[in-house]
Amino acid sequence: MADLAGVRVVDGSLLWQPPAGPAWAVSSDWLRDSCPCAACRHPGNGQKLYAITDLPDDLQAASAEAQADGGVLVHWSDGHRSVYPAAWLHDHALSEPARQARRVSPTLWTGALRDHLPVADWPVLLADPALELRWLEQYAALGFGLLRQVPTEPGQVALVGDRLGFVRVTNYGRLFDVKSVPNPTNLAYTAVGLGVHSDNPYRHPSPGVQLLHCLESEAPGGDTLLVDGFHAAQILRREDPGGFDLLTRVPMNFRYADASTELRARQTLISTDMDGVVRAVHFNNRSADWLDAPADLAQAWYRAYRAFARILKRPELELVFRLAPGDCVVMQNDRTLHGRTAFDPGRGRRHLQGCYIDGDAMESRRLVLRRTAHS
Amino acid sequence: MADLAGVRVVDGSLLWQPPAGPAWAVSSDWLRDSCPCAACRHPGNGQKLYAITDLPDDLQAASAEAQADGGVLVHWSDGHRSVYPAAWLHDHALSEPARQARRVSPTLWTGALRDHLPVADWPVLLADPALELRWLEQYAALGFGLLRQVPTEPGQVALVGDRLGFVRVTNYGRLFDVKSVPNPTNLAYTAVGLGVHSDNPYRHPSPGVQLLHCLESEAPGGDTLLVDGFHAAQILRREDPGGFDLLTRVPMNFRYADASTELRARQTLISTDMDGVVRAVHFNNRSADWLDAPADLAQAWYRAYRAFARILKRPELELVFRLAPGDCVVMQNDRTLHGRTAFDPGRGRRHLQGCYIDGDAMESRRLVLRRTAHS
Repeated sequence: MADLAGVRVVDGSLLWQPPAGPAWAVSSDWLRDSCPCAACRHPGNGQKLYAITDLPDDLQAASAEAQADGGVLVHWSDGHRSVYPAAWLHDHALSEPARQARRVSPTLWTGALRDHLPVADWPVLLADPALELRWLEQYAALGFGLLRQVPTEPGQVALVGDRLGFVRVTNYGRLFDVKSVPNPTNLAYTAVGLGVHSDNPYRHPSPGVQLLHCLESEAPGGDTLLVDGFHAAQILRREDPGGFDLLTRVPMNFRYADASTELRARQTLISTDMDGVVRAVHFNNRSADWLDAPADLAQAWYRAYRAFARILKRPELELVFRLAPGDCVVMQNDRTLHGRTAFDPGRGRRHLQGCYIDGDAMESRRLVLRRTAHS
Repeated sequence: MADLAGVRVVDGSLLWQPPAGPAWAVSSDWLRDSCPCAACRHPGNGQKLYAITDLPDDLQAASAEAQADGGVLVHWSDGHRSVYPAAWLHDHALSEPARQARRVSPTLWTGALRDHLPVADWPVLLADPALELRWLEQYAALGFGLLRQVPTEPGQVALVGDRLGFVRVTNYGRLFDVKSVPNPTNLAYTAVGLGVHSDNPYRHPSPGVQLLHCLESEAPGGDTLLVDGFHAAQILRREDPGGFDLLTRVPMNFRYADASTELRARQTLISTDMDGVVRAVHFNNRSADWLDAPADLAQAWYRAYRAFARILKRPELELVFRLAPGDCVVMQNDRTLHGRTAFDPGRGRRHLQGCYIDGDAMESRRLVLRRTAHS
């Protein structure tokens, strides 16, 4: 057993006392599998150059030394040496306070956000990475963002999608039109109001991001409604913890069918991660198909479903604003629910175009822009 | 309380005794939300025409009558009438035996499948919906399928992808080349062997389906390895239930980074649904970043990770075959893990092209072809 300032090896594992905060014990496999040396990870892309089964089963830390700069040098039982910088140890600490401190909480919002919409002018954003980063940070915190001055030409929404990420083509095509049409196959193409919802929960995977670009908005009505699904989930959790729990555990079956399509997916209305943090909300009354769950859960599940649906209709949660031609709203489809008020197609035209992209490319862009901003 | 052959209303809920099988109690909300009438659901696409909050809170079944054809007519407390056909009641029964009977089990396979590969000739499949359905049914059961006689021209793989579904464009482009290149940014572009893995677990969502199309294969070695991840998960569950449980609950952080990209995702290696059925396997040693989990779980998680990795290397699970020019393997990326043996780029060329699509379009196509086949 080595015993040095800040770091000790006990039974082949490491006990690490950082300069601040509680001590934490590190499993030897965990620490070794995080070795940053060039023999273990490709220096360019960080990919691992060995398989976990290449490491000895009885791998142990033989000794450890605290480094002058706060890092730790570990000598392993198989002769390998690993050096963990102090910053890495800080950023990867597994103690509960450290894990909680790293958790980024979303900024929950209500209808009052109408006076502080996360907005950027598209031509300016394209030319200014600092503004782009600021808009992406707001998008990440709030789950949506607004772009203005997108050219009001058909097809532009897909160009915006391909600049923010990569358009995901579906059975609706590369983009879709939202306007009143005769004999609609989908309620979105009528003039009725639509309660707030996520798009396409019947798809697996569901779209991560939806873009809606306004080309014309002369018809009275047809205002955009947004509701923060994470906020609504938090309210349900507080007011009805048992109902919240059911909606995170028991999925709904969603479905969409037409002559050439039959899409089915099974999703929980609220998804939480292992730490209980809300990660996704999917709500769509129209394409809910049926609840395939043990019979004794059905009535309680529906009680929770009604409670969540009522929260989503609370006027104080509704962010209402009007899209003008050239506006494009970009929504995290598994958080920010959207709807619209009814409109009168007889008194003016209303035409939006939409498309879907996945969220990871936007998140990648945000992280890459941060590298430059913070370097 | 009504009391009729096969169906009774008890305290506003329905007790249904089907002609065969156990009786099951139906919650009134559940049953009403499944009303198939044209006022409740759009006859064309099945979308619901009301919101759950439009139904009265105290909704109850007032009375029910068994119909001569085995269906049930329900009179509701708000005056609505619903008719549930016998076949619908059978297909949606919530009793545990009925739910179990509906569950479609995947066909688990081993290396012995090499003599029964799920294969179709691409030009024939394009012209013959019955053959296409047969191939799609095999794909759905086994988690992969092989196509032959795909023209050996660059770019063809994306055309196949757009016929089977919709190509998902990523930072690698619409398609990617797999061949030995100098200074590779990704290990896949070297000549070393690759253990079986899922592609891009660092992406959210991960690709649902991967296509790999062989254009040239002169180099000795470079055989394709496939392993049924669902089968490996079942073995782990049997041999190490505690380890299986940890891998379904505690996610790994995955990451890929290069000069213009920073992708991060957090996924469990094994995903199960609410009934404990395995739904997805993600395994990729190279892009595993680090385990962000409570410190006291780390050593047990790594023990399970090693156990799962060892199962994935069992020779009897490895399906080994050689892709010839014109062959295209289509793999369910969250089930069928793939790898390759090392090859010698100095003794001949090896060139594959790949792309990703989502799985739902293939599943939709299978269900649509079934409508015709069974009508």
